[in-house]
Amino acid sequence: MRNLRLLLEYDGTAFVGWQMQANGRSVQGELTRVLEQVLQEQVNLIGAGRTDAGVHARGQVANVRTENDISCPLLEHALNGLLPPDVRVVELADVPVAFHARFDARERRYRYFIARVPAAIGRQYQWYLRKELDVAAMNRIAARIVGDYDFEAFCKYAADVDHCRCTVTDAGWDEGPGVLTFRIAANRFLHGMVRALVGTMVDVGRGYTMEQEFEGIMQSRDRARAGMAAPAHGLVLEQVLY
Amino acid sequence: MRNLRLLLEYDGTAFVGWQMQANGRSVQGELTRVLEQVLQEQVNLIGAGRTDAGVHARGQVANVRTENDISCPLLEHALNGLLPPDVRVVELADVPVAFHARFDARERRYRYFIARVPAAIGRQYQWYLRKELDVAAMNRIAARIVGDYDFEAFCKYAADVDHCRCTVTDAGWDEGPGVLTFRIAANRFLHGMVRALVGTMVDVGRGYTMEQEFEGIMQSRDRARAGMAAPAHGLVLEQVLY
Repeated sequence: MRNLRLLLEYDGTAFVGWQMQANGRSVQGELTRVLEQVLQEQVNLIGAGRTDAGVHARGQVANVRTENDISCPLLEHALNGLLPPDVRVVELADVPVAFHARFDARERRYRYFIARVPAAIGRQYQWYLRKELDVAAMNRIAARIVGDYDFEAFCKYAADVDHCRCTVTDAGWDEGPGVLTFRIAANRFLHGMVRALVGTMVDVGRGYTMEQEFEGIMQSRDRARAGMAAPAHGLVLEQVLY
Repeated sequence: MRNLRLLLEYDGTAFVGWQMQANGRSVQGELTRVLEQVLQEQVNLIGAGRTDAGVHARGQVANVRTENDISCPLLEHALNGLLPPDVRVVELADVPVAFHARFDARERRYRYFIARVPAAIGRQYQWYLRKELDVAAMNRIAARIVGDYDFEAFCKYAADVDHCRCTVTDAGWDEGPGVLTFRIAANRFLHGMVRALVGTMVDVGRGYTMEQEFEGIMQSRDRARAGMAAPAHGLVLEQVLY
């Protein structure tokens, strides 16, 4: 029995998300189909994070166990040849059989991109916001969430999980030419968490929500108190650390 | 009579090119339709360069004369509201009536992007080439074309122009993480010239064409001697200088 670790990049635009579903085109579904075609056996593909519909990934990690002894370079070449162009296998390697892409992940890193100038090129990967934003206030909130906190106020389906505590190890907004980027790293993320955080911070940046209200939103553990989810297409799963 | 200068960005993926055609969706056509809708008069939109089908632009410049006295910020806002998302007006300003986007342009700058690793995100803007490339040899050829030369060997329809001489002021390959970029600046470009140059240089980089043969290709003024055109989707019109 071998265990293969895949580093994956995908453009989430035309996917219903990572997870296989009865209807719709999922990343896990496309990969499973092609893996089974090449490996000639049924496989169970495990992903590190279940990205939502429209969310992209540059560094999704997955693993799959197989009895097939095909070489890694050959398998990578075959997969990229058969996969649609919006999913790519960037790396493929044998790992110990015990490796589990989801349970062994220590940290996940996401970025959210906000375009500050009208963009046609790359518009699929950025949320365009023309309004003035108080980035300093948004950065004070980003600093506030670093640590071990309950993020239920930013969780779409809290019923799915035992608890809503996450350890955020880094969060902040970086201003580049024409683009504003939010980076966040944590041991785990709740469903819709990054998009809800971005939406809420943007509300503060625009002055729709007072900066002082953020503390109450966090404490409330009530999703209805936080801002709207920022659009999916600005979000990228950048990296998973083990 | 006013004259307006537009700085335009577009994603060429779904366009038949800049120039209006009887059939197909052109950038000039989309812009003309929307300008006429807002300005309530017939317009003649002049572009600095006629990009081919599939070629992108971050810095296309155009001008249009009008009798309408709408303010520039309002017009820009109206245009971006009515235009499809793959064309954006980045800047809009009044300029002297004599300004002509095409005839007054001194220099045009293009970039061509080659992805060296499989990419899903941004694949619409890069040519993916997995083969080893001798970038030093490609750079020696890039240095060779800087100057005032006849580029008929790299021109798709030489019959369309009086002569094929172009003054190339800069050309070179830059290696970045996972991406190889060709930059070229010239007073004018012939039809298909950048893509033919890139295709020929890549043939040299792959060893399909000997470096020493390039001189003969240039001298031949025969398009059939040069390499295949590199795919349109890797090319971006970056800037037009006046």
